[in-house]
Amino acid sequence: MVSKAKADYRQAMGAPCVILDRPQLAENIGAVARVMANFGLEDLRLVAPRDGWPQPRAWPSASGADWPLDNARVFASVPAAVADLKLVFATTARNRGLALPVMNPRQGAEALTRNADLPSGLLFGAERAGLETEDVAITQGLITIPIDPRFKSLNLAQAVALNAYEWRMAQDAAPPADFRPPSRPVAQQELFGFYDHLEHELDDAGFFHPPAKKPSMVRNLRVIFARAGLTEQEVRTLRGVITALSKGRGRVLAKLAARKSDPPS
Amino acid sequence: MVSKAKADYRQAMGAPCVILDRPQLAENIGAVARVMANFGLEDLRLVAPRDGWPQPRAWPSASGADWPLDNARVFASVPAAVADLKLVFATTARNRGLALPVMNPRQGAEALTRNADLPSGLLFGAERAGLETEDVAITQGLITIPIDPRFKSLNLAQAVALNAYEWRMAQDAAPPADFRPPSRPVAQQELFGFYDHLEHELDDAGFFHPPAKKPSMVRNLRVIFARAGLTEQEVRTLRGVITALSKGRGRVLAKLAARKSDPPS
Repeated sequence: MVSKAKADYRQAMGAPCVILDRPQLAENIGAVARVMANFGLEDLRLVAPRDGWPQPRAWPSASGADWPLDNARVFASVPAAVADLKLVFATTARNRGLALPVMNPRQGAEALTRNADLPSGLLFGAERAGLETEDVAITQGLITIPIDPRFKSLNLAQAVALNAYEWRMAQDAAPPADFRPPSRPVAQQELFGFYDHLEHELDDAGFFHPPAKKPSMVRNLRVIFARAGLTEQEVRTLRGVITALSKGRGRVLAKLAARKSDPPS
Repeated sequence: MVSKAKADYRQAMGAPCVILDRPQLAENIGAVARVMANFGLEDLRLVAPRDGWPQPRAWPSASGADWPLDNARVFASVPAAVADLKLVFATTARNRGLALPVMNPRQGAEALTRNADLPSGLLFGAERAGLETEDVAITQGLITIPIDPRFKSLNLAQAVALNAYEWRMAQDAAPPADFRPPSRPVAQQELFGFYDHLEHELDDAGFFHPPAKKPSMVRNLRVIFARAGLTEQEVRTLRGVITALSKGRGRVLAKLAARKSDPPS
């Protein structure tokens, strides 16, 4: 059962419906419902499903995305299934010489998003046969998935998934940033304190050898940590690492020095 | 059998390999092979598949895309499976508080494409369990699919499909640079050797306290260095740092032990 809230959500977002022309396998219909739910689509329309409808085997393969199946509507033909829609794109591997715009899924999704006020749909052909050219001809555009020409056998649910994903992506006009600095980046001065700590301990340990190379060695070390984009917590952790690695030495040296200063008995 | 031409093609295009961690269902492995072939990926790696390998039921669900299955390699662990790679992204629904770059599939594909000279991989978790956080922590970035929060159960092959599709799309685009790996990144196995070295020394120094916290402490440390995108030279430098900081302790302890073993005069 689709809830009222869910139906409203779909309307508000201008999500396209998904129309499957003569789908053969119930498992594929269920898998389509699952990916529709993954990306916020709900309105599933079936044109003359080969084995009738409902088919119980569809539900298990939806993995809990029951609402597109529960509310799926069956139509006798593609024209009947798209009658109330104003913008329909057909997903097809060939353009069939029709003078229609040819888009990839991203361009198709962008076109749907720009026209979110229009009731829209994505039309998919049968598993093997694909769409009839006369059904393609009543659509407003073709969506062609950029598939490897050496292996074009794309699963039906995968074709729906790619288009649903692109629709979802298109909803976010400003996608999240590629590279995000840590949520609580450290102030430079904390970083400098860490550098001092590290370099002091390395000096003590005789790491900077020969001395003439010390400036470039220091620079190279700093770059590593600057690039890591450390948080305050991480700087504390790294200071703990340095202390742990070097403290034993310090303590033991102090002990040794103390023993040395004792006159032999 | 993969043909020579196909292997060359993959190499030339810099396609990422696909690593499935503990996949459960043979049908899913076959479906993954199918979408890999759809978008020109070939190198499939399986980490400890639940039912062993090969599993005959995988081939029918590949619908003829046999070559990724025929050439699939099995590994005992995620670190072993990614040892030769230089850029690995983990697909995960949660960022687990790890301070790694978070990308959507498009941004991930763009990063792979900009760095097509680096051997790379996309890491996917088991059908239900997902990835272990310690395996995520050794990667260079996270890919999160923008899925509807109300229904997040995404099929494994669909997750692979979306990333493979985006990789294919990115081949035709010239995206802006953002995620930049180092000029000569280290192979994962060098990094693992460095982790072992650091963690061994920290163990000796009593750093991991209380012991129950060791796993998360190790993870947090690894993330720092995974994120830094270290070069081979930098890893050598850091190993020198660890040795320098800890060797004094060892030398001095040995000296102290030698003195202690001398009977007092």
